[in-house]
Amino acid sequence: MFTLVQKVRDYECDLQGIVNNANYQHYLEHARHEFLLSRGVNFKALHEQGTDAVVARLTMAFKTPLTSGDEYECTVRVRKEGIKYIFLQDIFRLSDHKLVVRATVDTVCLVNGRLAASPDLDETFKADFEAE
Amino acid sequence: MFTLVQKVRDYECDLQGIVNNANYQHYLEHARHEFLLSRGVNFKALHEQGTDAVVARLTMAFKTPLTSGDEYECTVRVRKEGIKYIFLQDIFRLSDHKLVVRATVDTVCLVNGRLAASPDLDETFKADFEAE
Amino acid sequence: MFTLVQKVRDYECDLQGIVNNANYQHYLEHARHEFLLSRGVNFKALHEQGTDAVVARLTMAFKTPLTSGDEYECTVRVRKEGIKYIFLQDIFRLSDHKLVVRATVDTVCLVNGRLAASPDLDETFKADFEAE
Amino acid sequence: MFTLVQKVRDYECDLQGIVNNANYQHYLEHARHEFLLSRGVNFKALHEQGTDAVVARLTMAFKTPLTSGDEYECTVRVRKEGIKYIFLQDIFRLSDHKLVVRATVDTVCLVNGRLAASPDLDETFKADFEAE
Repeated sequence: MFTLVQKVRDYECDLQGIVNNANYQHYLEHARHEFLLSRGVNFKALHEQGTDAVVARLTMAFKTPLTSGDEYECTVRVRKEGIKYIFLQDIFRLSDHKLVVRATVDTVCLVNGRLAASPDLDETFKADFEAE
Repeated sequence: MFTLVQKVRDYECDLQGIVNNANYQHYLEHARHEFLLSRGVNFKALHEQGTDAVVARLTMAFKTPLTSGDEYECTVRVRKEGIKYIFLQDIFRLSDHKLVVRATVDTVCLVNGRLAASPDLDETFKADFEAE
Repeated sequence: MFTLVQKVRDYECDLQGIVNNANYQHYLEHARHEFLLSRGVNFKALHEQGTDAVVARLTMAFKTPLTSGDEYECTVRVRKEGIKYIFLQDIFRLSDHKLVVRATVDTVCLVNGRLAASPDLDETFKADFEAE
Repeated sequence: MFTLVQKVRDYECDLQGIVNNANYQHYLEHARHEFLLSRGVNFKALHEQGTDAVVARLTMAFKTPLTSGDEYECTVRVRKEGIKYIFLQDIFRLSDHKLVVRATVDTVCLVNGRLAASPDLDETFKADFEAE
Protein backbone atom coordinates (compact mmCIF):
# COMPACT_ATOMS: atom_id res chain seq x y z
CA MET A 1 0.00 0.00 0.00
CA PHE A 2 1.31 3.45 -0.96
CA THR A 3 1.73 5.94 1.89
CA LEU A 4 3.00 9.51 2.05
CA VAL A 5 4.06 11.37 5.19
CA GLN A 6 3.65 15.16 5.27
CA LYS A 7 3.45 17.90 7.88
CA VAL A 8 0.70 20.46 8.41
CA ARG A 9 1.70 23.97 7.32
CA ASP A 10 0.38 26.77 9.53
CA TYR A 11 -1.34 28.59 6.65
CA GLU A 12 -3.51 25.49 6.17
CA CYS A 13 -5.14 26.12 9.56
CA ASP A 14 -8.14 28.45 9.67
CA LEU A 15 -9.61 30.70 12.36
CA GLN A 16 -10.76 27.64 14.33
CA GLY A 17 -7.04 26.84 14.75
CA ILE A 18 -7.33 23.53 12.91
CA VAL A 19 -6.66 22.46 9.32
CA ASN A 20 -9.41 23.82 7.05
CA ASN A 21 -11.40 20.93 5.57
CA ALA A 22 -10.66 21.78 1.96
CA ASN A 23 -6.97 21.20 2.64
CA TYR A 24 -7.60 17.51 3.36
CA GLN A 25 -8.83 17.31 -0.23
CA HIS A 26 -5.48 18.80 -1.26
CA TYR A 27 -3.62 16.26 0.90
CA LEU A 28 -5.54 13.40 -0.73
CA GLU A 29 -4.90 14.73 -4.24
CA HIS A 30 -1.19 15.19 -3.61
CA ALA A 31 -0.90 11.64 -2.24
CA ARG A 32 -2.72 10.26 -5.30
CA HIS A 33 -0.42 12.15 -7.67
CA GLU A 34 2.67 10.90 -5.79
CA PHE A 35 1.20 7.40 -6.01
CA LEU A 36 0.81 7.83 -9.79
CA LEU A 37 4.38 9.08 -10.01
CA SER A 38 5.67 6.08 -8.06
CA ARG A 39 4.00 3.92 -10.75
CA GLY A 40 5.60 5.95 -13.54
CA VAL A 41 2.61 8.17 -14.37
CA ASN A 42 3.01 11.94 -14.36
CA PHE A 43 -0.28 13.81 -13.88
CA LYS A 44 0.89 16.90 -15.74
CA ALA A 45 2.35 14.92 -18.66
CA LEU A 46 -0.90 12.94 -18.80
CA HIS A 47 -2.80 16.24 -19.16
CA GLU A 48 -0.44 17.44 -21.90
CA GLN A 49 -0.99 14.17 -23.78
CA GLY A 50 -4.76 14.79 -23.74
CA THR A 51 -5.75 12.47 -20.90
CA ASP A 52 -7.25 14.10 -17.82
CA ALA A 53 -7.93 12.06 -14.73
CA VAL A 54 -10.82 13.81 -13.00
CA VAL A 55 -12.73 13.20 -9.80
CA ALA A 56 -16.35 12.26 -10.39
CA ARG A 57 -17.41 11.69 -6.79
CA LEU A 58 -15.86 12.19 -3.38
CA THR A 59 -16.87 11.09 0.10
CA MET A 60 -14.94 12.23 3.13
CA ALA A 61 -15.56 11.41 6.80
CA PHE A 62 -13.78 13.81 9.15
CA LYS A 63 -12.80 12.02 12.37
CA THR A 64 -10.04 13.96 14.15
CA PRO A 65 -8.78 17.40 13.17
CA LEU A 66 -5.11 18.06 12.46
CA THR A 67 -3.52 21.22 13.75
CA SER A 68 -0.29 23.22 13.57
CA GLY A 69 2.79 21.01 13.81
CA ASP A 70 1.03 17.70 13.22
CA GLU A 71 2.57 15.17 10.90
CA TYR A 72 0.22 12.89 9.00
CA GLU A 73 0.35 9.82 6.82
CA CYS A 74 -1.85 9.56 3.77
CA THR A 75 -2.59 6.15 2.30
CA VAL A 76 -3.66 5.22 -1.22
CA ARG A 77 -5.34 2.03 -2.35
CA VAL A 78 -7.18 1.59 -5.63
CA ARG A 79 -9.74 -0.71 -7.20
CA LYS A 80 -11.42 -0.75 -10.57
CA GLU A 81 -15.16 -0.63 -11.27
CA GLY A 82 -16.07 -0.40 -14.96
CA ILE A 83 -14.18 2.59 -16.28
CA LYS A 84 -13.86 4.11 -12.80
CA TYR A 85 -10.79 4.00 -10.60
CA ILE A 86 -11.95 4.03 -6.99
CA PHE A 87 -9.30 5.36 -4.63
CA LEU A 88 -9.63 4.43 -0.95
CA GLN A 89 -7.63 6.90 1.08
CA ASP A 90 -7.07 7.43 4.78
CA ILE A 91 -5.21 10.15 6.61
CA PHE A 92 -3.70 9.25 9.99
CA ARG A 93 -2.09 11.54 12.55
CA LEU A 94 1.44 10.27 12.90
CA SER A 95 1.88 10.90 16.64
CA ASP A 96 -0.86 8.46 17.74
CA HIS A 97 -2.00 6.91 14.44
CA LYS A 98 -5.51 8.25 15.04
CA LEU A 99 -7.75 8.34 11.94
CA VAL A 100 -8.15 11.91 10.67
CA VAL A 101 -10.06 11.46 7.41
CA ARG A 102 -11.43 8.44 5.57
CA ALA A 103 -12.15 9.08 1.92
CA THR A 104 -13.42 7.40 -1.21
CA VAL A 105 -12.51 9.13 -4.44
CA ASP A 106 -14.09 7.95 -7.71
CA THR A 107 -12.10 9.09 -10.70
CA VAL A 108 -12.58 8.73 -14.42
CA CYS A 109 -10.50 9.55 -17.45
CA LEU A 110 -11.35 12.13 -20.06
CA VAL A 111 -9.44 11.43 -23.25
CA ASN A 112 -9.50 14.57 -25.38
CA GLY A 113 -12.47 15.70 -23.33
CA ARG A 114 -14.52 12.50 -23.61
CA LEU A 115 -15.12 9.87 -20.96
CA ALA A 116 -13.04 6.85 -21.95
CA ALA A 117 -11.20 3.83 -20.65
CA SER A 118 -7.45 4.21 -20.38
CA PRO A 119 -5.69 0.95 -21.29
CA ASP A 120 -2.40 2.59 -20.26
CA LEU A 121 -3.57 3.32 -16.71
CA ASP A 122 -5.14 -0.14 -16.47
CA GLU A 123 -1.80 -1.68 -17.33
CA THR A 124 0.06 0.62 -14.94
CA PHE A 125 -2.15 -0.13 -11.92
CA LYS A 126 -2.66 -3.82 -12.72
CA ALA A 127 -0.66 -5.00 -9.71
CA ASP A 128 -2.36 -2.46 -7.42
CA PHE A 129 -6.03 -3.20 -8.05
CA GLU A 130 -7.76 -4.64 -5.03
CA ALA A 131 -10.76 -6.92 -5.09
CA GLU A 132 -13.99 -5.28 -3.93
CA MET B 1 -33.73 28.88 -0.42
CA PHE B 2 -30.49 30.77 0.14
CA THR B 3 -28.29 31.35 -2.93
CA LEU B 4 -24.98 33.13 -3.45
CA VAL B 5 -23.52 34.19 -6.79
CA GLN B 6 -19.74 34.35 -7.14
CA LYS B 7 -17.18 34.35 -9.94
CA VAL B 8 -14.26 31.98 -10.48
CA ARG B 9 -10.90 33.58 -9.75
CA ASP B 10 -8.07 32.52 -12.08
CA TYR B 11 -5.82 31.32 -9.24
CA GLU B 12 -8.51 28.76 -8.37
CA CYS B 13 -7.85 26.97 -11.67
CA ASP B 14 -5.10 24.37 -11.76
CA LEU B 15 -2.84 23.04 -14.49
CA GLN B 16 -5.80 21.28 -16.14
CA GLY B 17 -7.19 24.80 -16.76
CA ILE B 18 -10.30 24.17 -14.64
CA VAL B 19 -11.21 24.94 -11.04
CA ASN B 20 -9.29 22.63 -8.70
CA ASN B 21 -11.73 20.35 -6.87
CA ALA B 22 -10.77 21.50 -3.37
CA ASN B 23 -11.96 25.00 -4.28
CA TYR B 24 -15.53 23.77 -4.67
CA GLN B 25 -15.31 22.81 -0.99
CA HIS B 26 -14.29 26.41 -0.30
CA TYR B 27 -17.22 27.69 -2.38
CA LEU B 28 -19.64 25.50 -0.41
CA GLU B 29 -18.19 26.60 2.93
CA HIS B 30 -18.35 30.27 2.02
CA ALA B 31 -21.99 29.93 0.92
CA ARG B 32 -22.87 28.18 4.21
CA HIS B 33 -21.18 30.91 6.24
CA GLU B 34 -23.02 33.61 4.27
CA PHE B 35 -26.23 31.67 4.87
CA LEU B 36 -25.48 31.63 8.63
CA LEU B 37 -24.79 35.36 8.50
CA SER B 38 -28.08 36.02 6.71
CA ARG B 39 -29.76 34.28 9.65
CA GLY B 40 -27.83 36.38 12.17
CA VAL B 41 -25.14 33.83 13.03
CA ASN B 42 -21.47 34.79 12.70
CA PHE B 43 -19.14 31.78 12.30
CA LYS B 44 -16.14 33.56 13.82
CA ALA B 45 -18.14 34.94 16.79
CA LEU B 46 -19.58 31.44 17.30
CA HIS B 47 -16.02 30.09 17.53
CA GLU B 48 -15.01 32.80 20.00
CA GLN B 49 -18.01 31.91 22.17
CA GLY B 50 -16.83 28.29 22.34
CA THR B 51 -19.15 26.76 19.75
CA ASP B 52 -17.52 25.28 16.67
CA ALA B 53 -19.64 24.06 13.80
CA VAL B 54 -17.59 21.33 12.14
CA VAL B 55 -18.10 19.11 9.11
CA ALA B 56 -18.43 15.43 10.03
CA ARG B 57 -19.07 14.05 6.57
CA LEU B 58 -19.05 15.36 3.04
CA THR B 59 -20.21 13.94 -0.27
CA MET B 60 -19.59 15.76 -3.52
CA ALA B 61 -20.54 14.74 -7.05
CA PHE B 62 -18.62 16.66 -9.71
CA LYS B 63 -20.74 17.10 -12.83
CA THR B 64 -19.37 19.96 -14.95
CA PRO B 65 -16.13 21.81 -14.32
CA LEU B 66 -16.00 25.58 -13.93
CA THR B 67 -13.22 27.51 -15.57
CA SER B 68 -11.74 31.01 -15.77
CA GLY B 69 -14.39 33.69 -16.04
CA ASP B 70 -17.37 31.50 -15.08
CA GLU B 71 -19.95 32.83 -12.66
CA TYR B 72 -21.69 30.32 -10.44
CA GLU B 73 -24.58 30.17 -8.05
CA CYS B 74 -24.29 28.20 -4.83
CA THR B 75 -27.46 27.08 -3.06
CA VAL B 76 -27.96 26.18 0.60
CA ARG B 77 -30.78 24.13 2.09
CA VAL B 78 -30.69 22.51 5.52
CA ARG B 79 -32.45 19.77 7.42
CA LYS B 80 -32.00 18.37 10.91
CA GLU B 81 -31.26 14.75 11.84
CA GLY B 82 -30.65 14.19 15.55
CA ILE B 83 -27.89 16.60 16.50
CA LYS B 84 -26.68 16.87 12.89
CA TYR B 85 -27.41 19.70 10.51
CA ILE B 86 -27.44 18.28 6.98
CA PHE B 87 -26.71 20.91 4.35
CA LEU B 88 -27.81 20.15 0.80
CA GLN B 89 -25.85 22.32 -1.56
CA ASP B 90 -25.65 22.68 -5.32
CA ILE B 91 -23.38 24.75 -7.47
CA PHE B 92 -24.73 25.84 -10.86
CA ARG B 93 -22.89 27.55 -13.71
CA LEU B 94 -24.72 30.82 -14.20
CA SER B 95 -24.43 31.05 -18.00
CA ASP B 96 -26.48 27.90 -18.71
CA HIS B 97 -27.61 26.81 -15.24
CA LYS B 98 -25.78 23.50 -15.69
CA LEU B 99 -25.13 21.55 -12.47
CA VAL B 100 -21.47 21.79 -11.46
CA VAL B 101 -21.41 20.12 -8.04
CA ARG B 102 -24.04 18.44 -5.88
CA ALA B 103 -23.04 18.14 -2.24
CA THR B 104 -24.30 16.87 1.08
CA VAL B 105 -22.52 18.29 4.10
CA ASP B 106 -23.20 16.81 7.54
CA THR B 107 -22.19 19.19 10.30
CA VAL B 108 -22.24 18.94 14.07
CA CYS B 109 -21.54 21.35 16.89
CA LEU B 110 -18.68 21.10 19.34
CA VAL B 111 -19.46 23.15 22.43
CA ASN B 112 -16.22 23.72 24.31
CA GLY B 113 -14.76 20.80 22.39
CA ARG B 114 -17.59 18.33 23.06
CA LEU B 115 -20.26 17.13 20.66
CA ALA B 116 -23.49 18.81 21.74
CA ALA B 117 -26.85 20.07 20.56
CA SER B 118 -27.06 23.81 19.99
CA PRO B 119 -30.50 25.13 21.03
CA ASP B 120 -29.45 28.53 19.66
CA LEU B 121 -28.77 27.20 16.15
CA ASP B 122 -31.96 25.10 16.30
CA GLU B 123 -33.94 28.25 17.04
CA THR B 124 -32.11 30.23 14.36
CA PHE B 125 -32.72 27.72 11.56
CA LYS B 126 -36.23 26.72 12.68
CA ALA B 127 -37.88 28.27 9.64
CA ASP B 128 -35.29 26.80 7.27
CA PHE B 129 -35.41 23.13 8.22
CA GLU B 130 -36.77 20.95 5.45
CA ALA B 131 -38.53 17.65 5.89
CA GLU B 132 -36.50 14.61 4.82
CA MET C 1 -9.17 54.08 -11.86
CA PHE C 2 -10.34 50.47 -11.79
CA THR C 3 -11.68 49.17 -8.46
CA LEU C 4 -13.14 45.85 -7.38
CA VAL C 5 -15.12 45.21 -4.19
CA GLN C 6 -14.95 41.75 -2.62
CA LYS C 7 -15.62 40.17 0.76
CA VAL C 8 -13.27 38.14 2.94
CA ARG C 9 -14.12 34.43 2.98
CA ASP C 10 -13.61 32.71 6.33
CA TYR C 11 -11.26 30.07 4.92
CA GLU C 12 -8.88 32.88 3.95
CA CYS C 13 -8.27 33.62 7.64
CA ASP C 14 -5.56 31.66 9.42
CA LEU C 15 -5.00 30.63 13.03
CA GLN C 16 -4.28 34.26 13.98
CA GLY C 17 -7.92 34.96 13.06
CA ILE C 18 -6.96 37.37 10.27
CA VAL C 19 -6.55 37.01 6.51
CA ASN C 20 -3.37 35.07 5.74
CA ASN C 21 -0.89 37.31 3.92
CA ALA C 22 -0.65 35.16 0.80
CA ASN C 23 -4.36 35.75 0.20
CA TYR C 24 -3.76 39.47 -0.33
CA GLN C 25 -1.58 38.42 -3.25
CA HIS C 26 -4.57 36.46 -4.56
CA TYR C 27 -6.82 39.52 -4.09
CA LEU C 28 -4.37 41.67 -6.05
CA GLU C 29 -4.08 39.13 -8.86
CA HIS C 30 -7.83 38.72 -9.15
CA ALA C 31 -8.30 42.51 -9.32
CA ARG C 32 -5.64 42.76 -12.05
CA HIS C 33 -7.30 40.01 -14.09
CA GLU C 34 -10.71 41.69 -13.73
CA PHE C 35 -9.06 44.93 -14.81
CA LEU C 36 -7.65 43.16 -17.89
CA LEU C 37 -11.09 41.74 -18.62
CA SER C 38 -12.70 45.17 -18.34
CA ARG C 39 -10.25 46.28 -21.05
CA GLY C 40 -11.12 43.29 -23.23
CA VAL C 41 -8.14 41.08 -22.34
CA ASN C 42 -8.73 37.56 -21.06
CA PHE C 43 -5.81 36.17 -19.04
CA LYS C 44 -6.58 32.55 -19.88
CA ALA C 45 -7.08 33.26 -23.61
CA LEU C 46 -3.81 35.22 -23.55
CA HIS C 47 -2.06 32.12 -22.15
CA GLU C 48 -3.63 29.88 -24.78
CA GLN C 49 -2.40 32.26 -27.50
CA GLY C 50 1.15 31.89 -26.21
CA THR C 51 1.44 35.15 -24.27
CA ASP C 52 1.94 34.84 -20.51
CA ALA C 53 1.86 37.92 -18.33
CA VAL C 54 4.06 37.07 -15.35
CA VAL C 55 5.03 38.92 -12.20
CA ALA C 56 8.74 39.77 -12.08
CA ARG C 57 8.78 41.68 -8.80
CA LEU C 58 6.32 42.38 -6.01
CA THR C 59 6.39 44.74 -3.05
CA MET C 60 3.64 44.68 -0.45
CA ALA C 61 3.27 46.82 2.66
CA PHE C 62 0.79 45.37 5.15
CA LYS C 63 -0.95 48.16 7.07
CA THR C 64 -4.19 46.85 8.63
CA PRO C 65 -5.32 43.23 8.66
CA LEU C 66 -8.68 42.17 7.27
CA THR C 67 -10.72 39.62 9.13
CA SER C 68 -13.89 37.53 8.81
CA GLY C 69 -16.78 39.49 7.35
CA ASP C 70 -14.75 42.46 6.11
CA GLU C 71 -15.46 43.88 2.69
CA TYR C 72 -12.55 45.41 0.82
CA GLU C 73 -11.91 47.45 -2.27
CA CYS C 74 -8.95 46.70 -4.48
CA THR C 75 -7.66 49.37 -6.83
CA VAL C 76 -5.61 48.99 -10.02
CA ARG C 77 -3.51 51.64 -11.73
CA VAL C 78 -0.81 50.93 -14.30
CA ARG C 79 2.19 52.65 -15.81
CA LYS C 80 4.74 51.53 -18.38
CA GLU C 81 8.52 51.37 -17.93
CA GLY C 82 10.37 49.86 -20.86
CA ILE C 83 8.78 46.46 -21.45
CA LYS C 84 7.44 46.31 -17.90
CA TYR C 85 3.89 47.06 -16.83
CA ILE C 86 4.00 48.42 -13.28
CA PHE C 87 0.74 47.92 -11.42
CA LEU C 88 0.09 50.14 -8.42
CA GLN C 89 -2.52 48.50 -6.26
CA ASP C 90 -4.11 49.32 -2.93
CA ILE C 91 -6.54 47.37 -0.82
CA PHE C 92 -8.87 49.36 1.44
CA ARG C 93 -11.24 48.08 4.12
CA LEU C 94 -14.66 49.21 2.99
CA SER C 95 -16.14 49.98 6.41
CA ASP C 96 -13.70 52.80 7.26
CA HIS C 97 -11.62 53.10 4.07
CA LYS C 98 -8.48 52.25 6.06
CA LEU C 99 -5.49 51.15 3.96
CA VAL C 100 -4.93 47.39 4.25
CA VAL C 101 -2.19 46.72 1.71
CA ARG C 102 -0.18 48.92 -0.66
CA ALA C 103 1.47 47.02 -3.46
CA THR C 104 3.64 47.50 -6.51
CA VAL C 105 3.58 44.66 -9.01
CA ASP C 106 6.05 44.64 -11.89
CA THR C 107 4.91 42.38 -14.69
CA VAL C 108 6.43 41.38 -18.00
CA CYS C 109 5.22 39.38 -20.96
CA LEU C 110 6.61 36.07 -22.10
CA VAL C 111 5.69 35.45 -25.71
CA ASN C 112 6.17 31.76 -26.45
CA GLY C 113 8.40 31.60 -23.39
CA ARG C 114 10.62 34.60 -24.25
CA LEU C 115 10.60 38.05 -22.68
CA ALA C 116 9.03 40.37 -25.24
CA ALA C 117 7.06 43.56 -25.70
CA SER C 118 3.36 43.10 -26.34
CA PRO C 119 2.09 45.70 -28.83
CA ASP C 120 -1.44 44.36 -28.23
CA LEU C 121 -1.31 45.06 -24.49
CA ASP C 122 0.31 48.44 -25.11
CA GLU C 123 -2.58 49.38 -27.37
CA THR C 124 -5.15 48.00 -24.89
CA PHE C 125 -3.83 49.93 -21.88
CA LYS C 126 -2.91 53.10 -23.81
CA ALA C 127 -5.60 55.19 -22.12
CA ASP C 128 -4.73 53.77 -18.69
CA PHE C 129 -1.00 54.43 -18.52
CA GLU C 130 -0.09 56.96 -15.88
CA ALA C 131 2.95 59.22 -15.93
CA GLU C 132 5.64 58.31 -13.40
CA MET D 1 21.79 28.93 7.69
CA PHE D 2 18.41 27.22 7.98
CA THR D 3 17.11 25.44 4.86
CA LEU D 4 13.99 23.42 4.14
CA VAL D 5 13.45 21.12 1.16
CA GLN D 6 9.91 20.64 -0.13
CA LYS D 7 8.22 19.48 -3.32
CA VAL D 8 5.70 21.31 -5.48
CA ARG D 9 2.19 19.92 -5.18
CA ASP D 10 0.18 19.89 -8.42
CA TYR D 11 -2.71 21.92 -6.97
CA GLU D 12 -0.23 24.76 -6.39
CA CYS D 13 0.15 25.18 -10.15
CA ASP D 14 -2.33 27.40 -11.95
CA LEU D 15 -3.66 27.52 -15.49
CA GLN D 16 -0.27 28.71 -16.78
CA GLY D 17 1.04 25.28 -15.65
CA ILE D 18 3.48 26.82 -13.16
CA VAL D 19 3.30 27.47 -9.41
CA ASN D 20 0.94 30.38 -8.72
CA ASN D 21 2.90 33.30 -7.26
CA ALA D 22 0.94 33.47 -4.01
CA ASN D 23 2.15 29.96 -3.18
CA TYR D 24 5.75 31.17 -2.97
CA GLN D 25 4.57 33.39 -0.12
CA HIS D 26 3.22 30.23 1.51
CA TYR D 27 6.54 28.44 0.94
CA LEU D 28 8.42 31.33 2.55
CA GLU D 29 6.05 31.45 5.53
CA HIS D 30 6.26 27.71 6.11
CA ALA D 31 10.08 27.82 6.01
CA ARG D 32 10.11 30.71 8.54
CA HIS D 33 7.79 28.82 10.89
CA GLU D 34 9.95 25.69 10.63
CA PHE D 35 12.96 27.89 11.33
CA LEU D 36 11.21 29.26 14.45
CA LEU D 37 10.40 25.71 15.52
CA SER D 38 14.00 24.61 15.08
CA ARG D 39 14.89 27.41 17.51
CA GLY D 40 12.24 26.28 20.00
CA VAL D 41 9.55 28.81 19.08
CA ASN D 42 6.07 27.60 18.12
CA PHE D 43 4.12 30.12 16.01
CA LYS D 44 0.72 28.88 17.20
CA ALA D 45 1.74 28.79 20.88
CA LEU D 46 3.17 32.30 20.45
CA HIS D 47 -0.24 33.44 19.18
CA GLU D 48 -2.04 31.77 22.09
CA GLN D 49 0.29 33.54 24.53
CA GLY D 50 -0.69 36.91 23.04
CA THR D 51 2.33 37.52 20.81
CA ASP D 52 1.70 37.68 17.07
CA ALA D 53 4.58 37.87 14.65
CA VAL D 54 3.21 39.69 11.61
CA VAL D 55 4.67 40.67 8.26
CA ALA D 56 4.91 44.44 7.81
CA ARG D 57 6.56 44.50 4.41
CA LEU D 58 7.44 41.97 1.73
CA THR D 59 9.55 42.14 -1.40
CA MET D 60 9.76 39.23 -3.79
CA ALA D 61 11.71 38.93 -7.03
CA PHE D 62 10.51 36.07 -9.22
CA LYS D 63 13.39 34.62 -11.25
CA THR D 64 12.50 31.12 -12.45
CA PRO D 65 9.10 29.45 -12.12
CA LEU D 66 8.67 26.09 -10.42
CA THR D 67 6.35 23.54 -11.93
CA SER D 68 4.81 20.14 -11.24
CA GLY D 69 7.29 17.68 -9.76
CA ASP D 70 9.97 20.24 -8.88
CA GLU D 71 11.72 20.03 -5.53
CA TYR D 72 12.91 23.27 -4.01
CA GLU D 73 15.03 24.45 -1.14
CA CYS D 74 13.97 27.44 0.91
CA THR D 75 16.57 29.30 2.95
CA VAL D 76 16.09 31.52 6.00
CA ARG D 77 18.48 34.13 7.34
CA VAL D 78 17.54 36.88 9.78
CA ARG D 79 18.85 40.21 10.94
CA LYS D 80 17.53 42.77 13.40
CA GLU D 81 16.77 46.44 12.71
CA GLY D 82 15.19 48.28 15.63
CA ILE D 83 12.14 46.24 16.60
CA LYS D 84 11.96 44.61 13.16
CA TYR D 85 13.18 41.13 12.28
CA ILE D 86 14.25 41.17 8.64
CA PHE D 87 14.14 37.72 7.06
CA LEU D 88 16.23 37.18 3.93
CA GLN D 89 14.87 34.19 2.09
CA ASP D 90 15.70 32.48 -1.17
CA ILE D 91 14.01 29.62 -2.94
CA PHE D 92 16.19 27.45 -5.19
CA ARG D 93 15.13 24.70 -7.59
CA LEU D 94 16.83 21.58 -6.33
CA SER D 95 17.58 19.96 -9.69
CA ASP D 96 19.91 22.73 -10.91
CA HIS D 97 20.10 25.10 -7.92
CA LYS D 98 18.65 27.90 -10.04
CA LEU D 99 17.25 30.85 -8.08
CA VAL D 100 13.44 30.81 -8.10
CA VAL D 101 12.52 33.62 -5.70
CA ARG D 102 14.55 36.10 -3.67
CA ALA D 103 12.59 37.67 -0.82
CA THR D 104 12.95 40.14 2.01
CA VAL D 105 10.33 39.84 4.71
CA ASP D 106 10.11 42.51 7.42
CA THR D 107 8.25 41.26 10.46
CA VAL D 108 7.26 42.86 13.73
CA CYS D 109 5.69 41.62 16.93
CA LEU D 110 2.28 42.59 18.22
CA VAL D 111 2.07 41.86 21.93
CA ASN D 112 -1.59 41.85 22.93
CA GLY D 113 -2.30 43.78 19.76
CA ARG D 114 0.36 46.48 20.21
CA LEU D 115 3.65 46.86 18.37
CA ALA D 116 6.36 45.88 20.85
CA ALA D 117 9.84 44.47 21.20
CA SER D 118 10.00 40.79 22.12
CA PRO D 119 12.96 40.13 24.47
CA ASP D 120 12.14 36.40 24.23
CA LEU D 121 12.54 36.33 20.43
CA ASP D 122 15.67 38.50 20.66
CA GLU D 123 17.20 35.96 23.02
CA THR D 124 16.08 33.03 20.86
CA PHE D 125 17.56 34.39 17.62
CA LYS D 126 20.67 35.90 19.21
CA ALA D 127 23.03 33.43 17.54
CA ASP D 128 21.25 33.80 14.18
CA PHE D 129 21.31 37.56 13.71
CA GLU D 130 23.49 38.63 10.83
CA ALA D 131 25.25 41.95 10.50
CA GLU D 132 23.78 44.24 7.86
